[in-house]
Amino acid sequence: MHNDLVAALDIGGTKIAGALVGGGGEILRRCRRPTPAREDGATVMAAVRAVLDDLAADAPLWERVIRLGIGSAGPVDASTGVVSPVNVPGWRDFPLVDEVGLAVGALPVVLVGDGVAMTAAEHWLGAARGRANALCMVVSTGVGGGLVLGGRLHPGPTGNAGHIGHISVDLDGDPCPCGSRGCVERIASGPNIARRALENGWRPGPEGDATAAAVARAARAGDPVASASFERAARALAAGIAATAALVEIETAVIGGGVAGAGEVLFAPLRRALSDYATLSFVRGLEVVPARMGADAGLVGAAAAAQAFSGAVGARPPASSV
Amino acid sequence: MHNDLVAALDIGGTKIAGALVGGGGEILRRCRRPTPAREDGATVMAAVRAVLDDLAADAPLWERVIRLGIGSAGPVDASTGVVSPVNVPGWRDFPLVDEVGLAVGALPVVLVGDGVAMTAAEHWLGAARGRANALCMVVSTGVGGGLVLGGRLHPGPTGNAGHIGHISVDLDGDPCPCGSRGCVERIASGPNIARRALENGWRPGPEGDATAAAVARAARAGDPVASASFERAARALAAGIAATAALVEIETAVIGGGVAGAGEVLFAPLRRALSDYATLSFVRGLEVVPARMGADAGLVGAAAAAQAFSGAVGARPPASSV
Repeated sequence: MHNDLVAALDIGGTKIAGALVGGGGEILRRCRRPTPAREDGATVMAAVRAVLDDLAADAPLWERVIRLGIGSAGPVDASTGVVSPVNVPGWRDFPLVDEVGLAVGALPVVLVGDGVAMTAAEHWLGAARGRANALCMVVSTGVGGGLVLGGRLHPGPTGNAGHIGHISVDLDGDPCPCGSRGCVERIASGPNIARRALENGWRPGPEGDATAAAVARAARAGDPVASASFERAARALAAGIAATAALVEIETAVIGGGVAGAGEVLFAPLRRALSDYATLSFVRGLEVVPARMGADAGLVGAAAAAQAFSGAVGARPPASSV
Repeated sequence: MHNDLVAALDIGGTKIAGALVGGGGEILRRCRRPTPAREDGATVMAAVRAVLDDLAADAPLWERVIRLGIGSAGPVDASTGVVSPVNVPGWRDFPLVDEVGLAVGALPVVLVGDGVAMTAAEHWLGAARGRANALCMVVSTGVGGGLVLGGRLHPGPTGNAGHIGHISVDLDGDPCPCGSRGCVERIASGPNIARRALENGWRPGPEGDATAAAVARAARAGDPVASASFERAARALAAGIAATAALVEIETAVIGGGVAGAGEVLFAPLRRALSDYATLSFVRGLEVVPARMGADAGLVGAAAAAQAFSGAVGARPPASSV
């Protein structure tokens, strides 16, 4: 129906955002709360309910809501509706879909990982629009992603597919908090770009900003150590993107998140590195482009995922229709 | 129809095999020719025609053939019907689908890469049967593979998806003939297992056999250098399999090919290494099993792929139905 709305939740370690999203991706109402990430699971869930209450407070809009989509920090398990976000220790195998279902009554609830949600948004309205096969990534505090295959979102059975941050591109490399070694995230995330620059002698300015954004400013000003840290990140991203292309044949890689905000400091070495790693005939044409959906990608994408898997009620998207 | 048959071609750098395959995967007629891999393209194509003539010589069987499937050494481009097998220099962008079409008249022709064909066979009748999400691999002179996603073969737009041999798991590693570095194949193929053992001091027995099979025998007899070479191959395979699982959520990895014939010399360190690299909650349950279809996997799989993509006539499988 033209008037139907989808309620969306974007749940991360810092904030819980909610929105009512229209059929064209427009956000008609929004609200957010800080995530009480250090508290127990019930307290975190109370914050989610408060966000839902805020959304429902506009009764005429809320009556038009036909389903609810959740994009959550991972790992998630869409097949059982539970989440265990790394940065929310109070939630371990937390039955988020059931709990949200209790809060919203009869609405169907669809859960995906936040990388899959961002991908749904970029595919619907952003840089992957019209692409049949694409990888969309967030390079930020962590590195996440999602896949579009054969023209459709591919969340995988548990809603985690496209998890490019934790593929190993350096099998003898540094241990990653995930337990593996040499993961893309261990090399290319914002904190790791800053860490490597500091280890190699870069020093923040008098304001003391030691973030990847500060390293990017230094690189733009000609600091070779700062540039080298971005180049290393670019190589890891390129190896991961090329691996994805060899495995599932993507035509586009979309990169968003704070680190992508570094612009050509990241994208120029990334395109060079991609020509080193993406050598097979069927991956050579791969393009890398910045994301377009910005900070609302998680909300718009959660709504898009809910529409895409509307047959699934708090359960895994039917694999055969994905 | 119960009586329908599919003609299948399995084209590699050593041999060109053909078969007539029944609806249960049974091979009713087969033939093969050596691949004249050092000759010009027309000579190689003449050998393909000779195989097709052999198949057609049984007129009552040939009349039941309703389509033809080709699994070819890659790279292939199923979207245009051309092939450029690395080990057949006379074929570069060779229009194989058109040429085979001229030879067989009105039959629909479907082309996939050999890794995808092997995967189709293992999914239809072998070790990936009943699996909704699987990676199937051949570890041999090269390393190839294919994917089953959401219960269906996923060849990708050009028929090359699942190309795990050329994903980099060691971004600073040895140059690979493909142009990249540290590819799974560069570490884990049979010739590279033998090369590494020789470089580290292993010596073949009096019979002079310096193949990966000989290294496997030495490993079974307790040679630590031989074992270490297999262990290194296992780590590269594990990193590649874990990457695939993180990207597309597979539940099973099926491994065939000559190197897989080493049995526990390969599979024991592979399972150990997999527990090092496959650490995320949604990939931890991944199992690794030997292939079951043996030497006929290419032929049976080419037939299966032809059935799976029967709407496609010498062209890309329709992405939306894959």
